[in-house]
Amino acid sequence: MRTKKSGEKSSNEILQEFKEFRERAADSGHMETAAAGSVKSEPKVKIIPLGGLEQIGMNITAFECGDSIVVVDCGLAFPTDDMLGIDLVIPDVTYLEKNLDKVKGFVITHGHEDHIGALPYILKKINVPVYGTKLTIGLIENKLKEHDMMKTTRRKVVKHGQSVTLGCFRVEFIKTNHSIADAAALAIFTPAGVIIHTGDFKIDYTPVFGDSADLLRFAELGKKGVLALMSDSTNAIRPGFTPSERTVSKTFDAIFAEHRSNRIIVATFASNVDRVQQIIKTAYKYGRKVVIEGRSMVNVIGTASELGYMDIPEGTLIDIEQLKNYTDDQTVLITTGSQGESMAALSRMASNLHRKVSIKPNDVVILSSNPIPGNEKAVAKVVNELYMNGAEVISQDTHVSGHACQEEIKLMYALTRPKYALPVHGEYRHLVANRDIAVSMGIPKENTLLMASGNVVEICSDHCRVIGHEQTGGILVDGLGVGDVGNIVLRDRQNLAQNGIIIVVLTLEKYTNQLLSGPDIVSRGFVYVRESEDLLEEARSVVNDTVADCMDRHMTDWGKIKNVIRDNLSDFLWKRMKRSPMILPIIMEVE
Amino acid sequence: MRTKKSGEKSSNEILQEFKEFRERAADSGHMETAAAGSVKSEPKVKIIPLGGLEQIGMNITAFECGDSIVVVDCGLAFPTDDMLGIDLVIPDVTYLEKNLDKVKGFVITHGHEDHIGALPYILKKINVPVYGTKLTIGLIENKLKEHDMMKTTRRKVVKHGQSVTLGCFRVEFIKTNHSIADAAALAIFTPAGVIIHTGDFKIDYTPVFGDSADLLRFAELGKKGVLALMSDSTNAIRPGFTPSERTVSKTFDAIFAEHRSNRIIVATFASNVDRVQQIIKTAYKYGRKVVIEGRSMVNVIGTASELGYMDIPEGTLIDIEQLKNYTDDQTVLITTGSQGESMAALSRMASNLHRKVSIKPNDVVILSSNPIPGNEKAVAKVVNELYMNGAEVISQDTHVSGHACQEEIKLMYALTRPKYALPVHGEYRHLVANRDIAVSMGIPKENTLLMASGNVVEICSDHCRVIGHEQTGGILVDGLGVGDVGNIVLRDRQNLAQNGIIIVVLTLEKYTNQLLSGPDIVSRGFVYVRESEDLLEEARSVVNDTVADCMDRHMTDWGKIKNVIRDNLSDFLWKRMKRSPMILPIIMEVE
Repeated sequence: MRTKKSGEKSSNEILQEFKEFRERAADSGHMETAAAGSVKSEPKVKIIPLGGLEQIGMNITAFECGDSIVVVDCGLAFPTDDMLGIDLVIPDVTYLEKNLDKVKGFVITHGHEDHIGALPYILKKINVPVYGTKLTIGLIENKLKEHDMMKTTRRKVVKHGQSVTLGCFRVEFIKTNHSIADAAALAIFTPAGVIIHTGDFKIDYTPVFGDSADLLRFAELGKKGVLALMSDSTNAIRPGFTPSERTVSKTFDAIFAEHRSNRIIVATFASNVDRVQQIIKTAYKYGRKVVIEGRSMVNVIGTASELGYMDIPEGTLIDIEQLKNYTDDQTVLITTGSQGESMAALSRMASNLHRKVSIKPNDVVILSSNPIPGNEKAVAKVVNELYMNGAEVISQDTHVSGHACQEEIKLMYALTRPKYALPVHGEYRHLVANRDIAVSMGIPKENTLLMASGNVVEICSDHCRVIGHEQTGGILVDGLGVGDVGNIVLRDRQNLAQNGIIIVVLTLEKYTNQLLSGPDIVSRGFVYVRESEDLLEEARSVVNDTVADCMDRHMTDWGKIKNVIRDNLSDFLWKRMKRSPMILPIIMEVE
Repeated sequence: MRTKKSGEKSSNEILQEFKEFRERAADSGHMETAAAGSVKSEPKVKIIPLGGLEQIGMNITAFECGDSIVVVDCGLAFPTDDMLGIDLVIPDVTYLEKNLDKVKGFVITHGHEDHIGALPYILKKINVPVYGTKLTIGLIENKLKEHDMMKTTRRKVVKHGQSVTLGCFRVEFIKTNHSIADAAALAIFTPAGVIIHTGDFKIDYTPVFGDSADLLRFAELGKKGVLALMSDSTNAIRPGFTPSERTVSKTFDAIFAEHRSNRIIVATFASNVDRVQQIIKTAYKYGRKVVIEGRSMVNVIGTASELGYMDIPEGTLIDIEQLKNYTDDQTVLITTGSQGESMAALSRMASNLHRKVSIKPNDVVILSSNPIPGNEKAVAKVVNELYMNGAEVISQDTHVSGHACQEEIKLMYALTRPKYALPVHGEYRHLVANRDIAVSMGIPKENTLLMASGNVVEICSDHCRVIGHEQTGGILVDGLGVGDVGNIVLRDRQNLAQNGIIIVVLTLEKYTNQLLSGPDIVSRGFVYVRESEDLLEEARSVVNDTVADCMDRHMTDWGKIKNVIRDNLSDFLWKRMKRSPMILPIIMEVE
């Protein structure tokens, strides 16, 4: 038996030391391949984006290790143009349902719809606790109330700087800035190292309310070693630094000072609590009363106010009914509709459909927003209508983005010094731009990864790569129906939308197959029937001839009869009109 | 009888002098009210915009005096988002049809669709000569060939500087710059004075091909006196001066120099002949062969080439079939699809649906265009797909606008010094901005007029005002149908698009009113039938109960039976689903 010499370590000590080394290395994310290679049990974490990477919105990402899954965000997406009649889209969480026992909770970065909007739907299937900062949880609770889910949903408010432990993960909430108050980045402490998910963020050194992003904490984590940074890419193609919210404050002051005798109407995002706060502050300074108008604005500001996120001087807010008691120079309206949404308050005011407020020549309308891509025409329409009613419209320097531009993204990489860069939030071109930033700052290109929804990414100190694929996709919500509209129904809607429908009905005797009535033709969305009598007469005779022919040939297969009717009528209409409406033959049977 | 003294004028001389004064005044457009008031026969001209002022596109304006009407432009509009299934929109020219004998001809400012696109449709009703510059007429002839109207349509090529006399009007074509070659402003010499219509214009001091705008002629007319300026307002909200086409040339050169080993693909507007010419010139300089791809691009460039508007070095153009014989660094593709149009060549290449060309990692794609408002999302989609295929996408400094910015509009006012300003071309906010420019330059606000389509504007040296209204509007073209789709059909299409349709069919005995078969339910675009059996079963039982009830109550009015079915089913679906599909009950009758 070997004698232990002085300075020599026991095998236990060596093992202990090695374990510590591994933990340090895993924590720092800088474990070298050689070291890792010698240990078979190298801890690995899986990152599975279940949405948010092929589209804007529907952000949801699972982090898995051993028997623990935590899910970051649970957002909805708004329907794309081809999703006719759809209200919203929620993520397919089949993967989470299959691993229900592992899911420890949802950790939410902030209270925007594309990060919280799917929660009421998903929590019905995966009832786990929800963690977020105070305003975020407040906005989630608004949704839970609407869905009558307050009693069944566990939720926990976390402060910036605090952590929650979820299975083998510890998730720390770190203060960031964004276009909604109380946004957080997440430092996810995993057995493989620290993964930082920025959520949506910007860095505002001079926020109008609250603190600046907690750069010190990012730096501290960077110092200790960060395995991966998952950074917001939304503005990654924009050079420079997103201006501070304070710059908007100056613009508001100048506009209010210049337009002392006008009524002022400001349209902005309902969820931009700080912006609304600024407008109220400016209104108060200039001795104006404030009306908040638009359902979502009233809801969000109500919640923010109850939770102490608003500082509204006594007597400043008035009800819209009281507006008539004040002169133009005494009031400000803060309203929804900055994106030209046709049903929002501003659009209704502009087109004289609002019950309480009409736009008039003495009005100054401030658009405190940029059009979200796709909304440009709708916004232009509202602006034109405002001008037609004689209003002045101001949109210069009245908005700043809530997302980090290139220099802020660089700062985030510089502070956190991650081993791997996994850009998130943005279209593909934005992810590419974020990746290019990472590479420009010295992260090897092979340590960057452009994920796609459904990718199973395995990450550890040794590597970061896609190892599999899980089912993902959008579940369409139409009215109260969740998932009962899919591609077939959408394709029918698109066809109906383009060309309308022609229904051909005939009644046949069950046994003899004799024509008892019809064929009758009914159309909707095809042509204006009263002015197309000739065409419809011709179509009718095509169908008559077809049915007569089928009868003559003693066809008994109704499927075939329908097909012949469809083909002949379709041919006729294409040749005659270059149109292809949906043709729906229906055969009724009488005994 | 009075004796004529020396220095005294004869009444004839006085009359002659007064006539000359009137002519001068009318010509100058600066006749004073006092003088005008004393002459009852003050010549007056009517300006009637028949389109183009409530929307982008569909530019068409009638000028009328006595028994003469000339029409400036005859464009189409592209359908707005709510015009489901519509291909294009043409103006309602009822007014011209009512005054067919007066219409002397169409004078066309340039060959863009929103200025020439409706001609084949309108000429079928109003067969008068068409006047335009060479390329403009060439592009119109392409359309006439498609509609087999070459033999029946008179057309005349007019050179810049030349005039055509049309009834009591003389119309002079004046060289301008625009994003298509051969654009012209029109000086319309009327009995009331000279009216200048700029068409779409910019001022390019250093055009890449052809001459700069004929500023001297505008100045000369200004010196003599201009009654009214109708100026392009498209860019009136943009400060400064639109850059010269030459700036794009420099960018192309830099990109070609930097990417010598890549294949280069450039997407731009099919009609931008000068842009295509520049790309070809740059390709030739760098020893590359050029492929022109996309139907409209091939057509326009073919016409421009035949008419001598292109200078293509021998052997530079190759067919797309020959592409495979060259290496990447030897070729350039010039293609349509810069607006993200899903069926255009670039989109098909990006989504791997193009038969001849796929995008690959060595490709550099230049977007030589800006997204037209409303196309932003479609363009972003194509850009993302290009990146996914590994291409590099460049869109910085690769395009300049074809429309005058504020300083150019000011220059036009400064040169022509009109008495009246009647802004044209642009949304309402753009017209307002143009009007504000006019006022800022000293034109009294009461001498400016923001016209609307259908306004009958009376203009003379004394006044310019709206004196009436004529019928205008958009006629929808769907396939070969012109005007057979209107609001009722569109509303049906919108409803079908949002919610789909449910058809309820039943067969009744004619005399006894007995139910012989059905009710059957068929739906399209409503729910995915196979996964909604419960819902449809419930709906069926609602309909069954309703029909049974109708039978029990011996209802014989089929209209009422249909209404009850519609109401009950509609109620059920709204309560159950919060959806309202179109419900179409059909009753078949059997004797």
